[in-house]
Amino acid sequence: MIIIMKNEATRVQIDAILGRIAELGLKPLCMPGTEKVVLGALGDERVLAGLRLENHPQVERVIPILSPYKLASRELYPSETVIQVGTHQIGTPRFTVIAGPCAVESEAQLMAAARHISAGGAVFLRGGAFKPRSSPYSFQGMGEEGLRLLAKARETYGTAVVTEVLSTEEVALVAGYADVLQVGARNMQNFRLLREVGRSGRPVLLKRGMSASISELLMSAEYILSEGNPDVILCERGIKTFETAYRNTLDLTALPILKQKTHLPVIVDPSHAAGHRDYIIPLAKAALACGADGVIVEVHPDPAAALSDGQQSLDLPMFDEMMRQLRRLAKVEGRIL
Amino acid sequence: MIIIMKNEATRVQIDAILGRIAELGLKPLCMPGTEKVVLGALGDERVLAGLRLENHPQVERVIPILSPYKLASRELYPSETVIQVGTHQIGTPRFTVIAGPCAVESEAQLMAAARHISAGGAVFLRGGAFKPRSSPYSFQGMGEEGLRLLAKARETYGTAVVTEVLSTEEVALVAGYADVLQVGARNMQNFRLLREVGRSGRPVLLKRGMSASISELLMSAEYILSEGNPDVILCERGIKTFETAYRNTLDLTALPILKQKTHLPVIVDPSHAAGHRDYIIPLAKAALACGADGVIVEVHPDPAAALSDGQQSLDLPMFDEMMRQLRRLAKVEGRIL
Amino acid sequence: MIIIMKNEATRVQIDAILGRIAELGLKPLCMPGTEKVVLGALGDERVLAGLRLENHPQVERVIPILSPYKLASRELYPSETVIQVGTHQIGTPRFTVIAGPCAVESEAQLMAAARHISAGGAVFLRGGAFKPRSSPYSFQGMGEEGLRLLAKARETYGTAVVTEVLSTEEVALVAGYADVLQVGARNMQNFRLLREVGRSGRPVLLKRGMSASISELLMSAEYILSEGNPDVILCERGIKTFETAYRNTLDLTALPILKQKTHLPVIVDPSHAAGHRDYIIPLAKAALACGADGVIVEVHPDPAAALSDGQQSLDLPMFDEMMRQLRRLAKVEGRIL
Amino acid sequence: MIIIMKNEATRVQIDAILGRIAELGLKPLCMPGTEKVVLGALGDERVLAGLRLENHPQVERVIPILSPYKLASRELYPSETVIQVGTHQIGTPRFTVIAGPCAVESEAQLMAAARHISAGGAVFLRGGAFKPRSSPYSFQGMGEEGLRLLAKARETYGTAVVTEVLSTEEVALVAGYADVLQVGARNMQNFRLLREVGRSGRPVLLKRGMSASISELLMSAEYILSEGNPDVILCERGIKTFETAYRNTLDLTALPILKQKTHLPVIVDPSHAAGHRDYIIPLAKAALACGADGVIVEVHPDPAAALSDGQQSLDLPMFDEMMRQLRRLAKVEGRIL
Repeated sequence: MIIIMKNEATRVQIDAILGRIAELGLKPLCMPGTEKVVLGALGDERVLAGLRLENHPQVERVIPILSPYKLASRELYPSETVIQVGTHQIGTPRFTVIAGPCAVESEAQLMAAARHISAGGAVFLRGGAFKPRSSPYSFQGMGEEGLRLLAKARETYGTAVVTEVLSTEEVALVAGYADVLQVGARNMQNFRLLREVGRSGRPVLLKRGMSASISELLMSAEYILSEGNPDVILCERGIKTFETAYRNTLDLTALPILKQKTHLPVIVDPSHAAGHRDYIIPLAKAALACGADGVIVEVHPDPAAALSDGQQSLDLPMFDEMMRQLRRLAKVEGRIL
Repeated sequence: MIIIMKNEATRVQIDAILGRIAELGLKPLCMPGTEKVVLGALGDERVLAGLRLENHPQVERVIPILSPYKLASRELYPSETVIQVGTHQIGTPRFTVIAGPCAVESEAQLMAAARHISAGGAVFLRGGAFKPRSSPYSFQGMGEEGLRLLAKARETYGTAVVTEVLSTEEVALVAGYADVLQVGARNMQNFRLLREVGRSGRPVLLKRGMSASISELLMSAEYILSEGNPDVILCERGIKTFETAYRNTLDLTALPILKQKTHLPVIVDPSHAAGHRDYIIPLAKAALACGADGVIVEVHPDPAAALSDGQQSLDLPMFDEMMRQLRRLAKVEGRIL
Repeated sequence: MIIIMKNEATRVQIDAILGRIAELGLKPLCMPGTEKVVLGALGDERVLAGLRLENHPQVERVIPILSPYKLASRELYPSETVIQVGTHQIGTPRFTVIAGPCAVESEAQLMAAARHISAGGAVFLRGGAFKPRSSPYSFQGMGEEGLRLLAKARETYGTAVVTEVLSTEEVALVAGYADVLQVGARNMQNFRLLREVGRSGRPVLLKRGMSASISELLMSAEYILSEGNPDVILCERGIKTFETAYRNTLDLTALPILKQKTHLPVIVDPSHAAGHRDYIIPLAKAALACGADGVIVEVHPDPAAALSDGQQSLDLPMFDEMMRQLRRLAKVEGRIL
Repeated sequence: MIIIMKNEATRVQIDAILGRIAELGLKPLCMPGTEKVVLGALGDERVLAGLRLENHPQVERVIPILSPYKLASRELYPSETVIQVGTHQIGTPRFTVIAGPCAVESEAQLMAAARHISAGGAVFLRGGAFKPRSSPYSFQGMGEEGLRLLAKARETYGTAVVTEVLSTEEVALVAGYADVLQVGARNMQNFRLLREVGRSGRPVLLKRGMSASISELLMSAEYILSEGNPDVILCERGIKTFETAYRNTLDLTALPILKQKTHLPVIVDPSHAAGHRDYIIPLAKAALACGADGVIVEVHPDPAAALSDGQQSLDLPMFDEMMRQLRRLAKVEGRIL
């Protein structure tokens, strides 16, 4: 840890800080510069959190050297995490396609989607039974009945179920039906929920918040991992920026950075980022080319009739076209699809 | 509602949409322009949500004319909401100062803060018992013991208690001790929690998310109001931007806009926005001059020893200086403090 | 154009506006809603700019239906623009690779780069002779001597020259040496410079500003086009966001949107966006997969010694690796490289 | 300067860097941590720029300790800069009000504005003769005729002239008429223009770019100062964010930060930030309360007829109301108005 002192810090104040660093078992260092004094603390700097040096009135800035997460870090755990979901895996050369409607709306709708996507080669079915909606007047999902339909689709078509859980009380219920629990972007820093899915025994698909930094995403993953659940799939889904030509800015640069910093699999959600079906296929392809382990896309048998997010849902022929183009790319990129 | 059709929309498709608008009891309008056809739907356009016209493949854009929130809207409820908290009120010419430590750390710390701020004229004590922390390794709060200390401070100094609630299960517990329930920025779109505090019978201090638009903040307030709780205090606390010289960008323009759009009281949190005590006093003054109904600030008897957010906590003399300067301003601004 | 009136607008005020619309030869329309009155103006709404209805005290909002640019618009000019640069073309199925050092530093450096990239299949050489630097104390470029070296590289290796022009006075000088004039991100709204390059007779590579919307980029292209220069290449190079793990957020969603809205070729600069060489190859591949017509990348024979932007420059083996991977992708994407 | 090495850096590579630091006359320091090696360089670290250590393949991060600007820094020049403009001053306890139309449109319009604002106590008249417009089809200003009218207003009403200069060729022309040269937000990093106004002999009003950081603003000021012109007035005018309820987010936190970092006067432009006249008065008051040295506001005798930015122009009674409210505040804030 590097500690930059204010210009007006006195020798006595500096020595006091150096003393506290030494007491905690780290090696203190003092670098008196021409204008400012800089201190160093060598060793496991996480021990220094208790000192809260950033609060000290004579400290200008504290710069950590090590990353604040541990279990999520590739530096400490270098090899790739592979997540087993039933007979399927995420985080291998096989490119994962998770597809399905935004919300489960009816048996007919869900079964039509599941039949089509599984025939097309997607083995993960997405579909919301509990929906987070910015307006209290919008459709809020079918609830447990939606979960039952997802389970029925699994029985019929063999598709593993990925579905969102909105609050701690529902974790057990949703985990009873789902194969993968999704934590949505708006809940990325709902720390109680993170702990609860960390104790659920189910793999977790953790979406990056619309204004969360890459480092904050990894800290949220750390919450889940630290409860003993090693199966976290990260998902980039667009961040909030000034651009209004689409919904959110898909941050594909996050892919090579996450791949460098963590061993967890990373997938991309182009549907929520773009907010319009016209841009999904090129963005899904870009995600594959950029190193994603998979994509999660919204597919609806009749987007014009969708109860939510219809504008960004692929219809069935567009899904087929996406798969065709992704397969072509996967081949030259050494991925299986 | 205005509906802009794509260039390629046919007469038949357009007529079908006009027919659906008429069926729902609104007056349809067709404006064939030189390049594009524009449709209108006159009446309570919220009825049209069911049509989901934005999903229609031949619709380019849907532009609502009315705001999506109703109970929060000043257009429908023009007079100011005044919130009664024990013998105190929020939303009157009296300028509200909510002060206290980021987290309740000990009886000594909390009592020292409560004694000082109440002597200085603040009647609301803030302090977190349940803390949302981005790292699972950081101090997470004292829990119920912290709530008991807040209640003790109320008995001793008469300060009303404002404290954060993190999840639905804790709402009843926290409501048993607190006078005002705070929903933090990270939970602004935790819709389950919004509903639950809407049923708690307690006033709610709702913080704007770091990346939430003003309109989204009002939609989240609508969730609480729609559960029958009319007592919502909005709080601007900074948004995420590219600037790194401070923590978040305090959005004071939100004040006159919120005052125009809603009847709910609006306060400002300069501490979390700035992230450093040096900038709190000027920003608190700017908030008052800009029309805020109050401020919420972090005050700690010994910031250098704070377990969280010490860098942004005012010490006791700085709190006194802030109050002195705010009083001077309040006088010329027609506010009581 | 749609005009939403404030609630308090009177019948007389509304009629006055409708009258002015009619006087200008457009068809006026009045839609009295339940809460607000909405007006329409059918015809070439650009004629209405003179009315400045958005200034009217009783007007709440003005919503244009047509795009503000014309020459750049695909609606008016549907077929792809192909730009001829000597014997080379940009905007065809051939994928354009523009490569070279950030700044021309010496003959040895430039020639080594030009030799390598041209041997590797890139026919456009980039290199700055006039450098925009945020600090006045940083290296500002070699000036005309740099231009002479670029021309020499062209003679020797046949590489077309792409180089930045910083101000109107230098346009003639730079156009005397360069094949393509680059307008940098910081100058995207330097309107004098846009007009001047519009009169230069040279194709222009126009970079999107770090905080420019897609629509503003097209308006800046319109400045160049409206001076009679049809040869504009658009370049996405990252936008400013809150994320600090890299330099700027590369906005690849801009690609399918630009392809929908304009007939101009679009390339991507992953080097300036990422700010670090480790992320260039995946991002260049993502750009190709997402529909870009080319990439512009920084390549330096010895990045550790570069006078500017060394951190983001590919070294020569990395350039070869990028070309190898791009070629593989190009093949399945129907592009020639 | 602090240099954090990558985990894989070898002893030999580290020693080489330490040797290069020592050769340049700085004191090198090596801190071998548990996971990473950290180096320090004590002395005037600006000397190290030539080493470009951030380019080194084994360097993870370089953290400067000193600010990159010198002449603009309060650390090196602690006392406030006071700028003399004719008989007026900027940067004293007197609160500066710069007012006038966005664009000079006619003699009648400008004279009406100048008469009114000077009667109301504003001694600086703003008005654009050369206008930067995002569309080539918008009104571009009256040019030199506009400058002549501004000079005429000065003769008649004694108001000093503040007007924008768009390009290097116009600097001499504009400086011949204006008292203060304005560099607009879009030109904040037009480095050629910065140098030219630095040689103009006129005070410069430098607006922060919509996406420029506070540090970049100070670097742009440094360009002007380094040409020998000490008279730079900084202007905060809103930054680009995701919020769409107004035009740009006014960043008032920049005020106390700029006051801490620099000795230059700082004013605020609420008109361009808000984009709507309804929000100007509260924001101007907030600016004063937050420590601004002045404001620059748009005032038009007939906003509904304005050729540009009419929506955000105060009309004459609103200007009077703003002055009345600012005066009331100025009194308690120790400012003269």
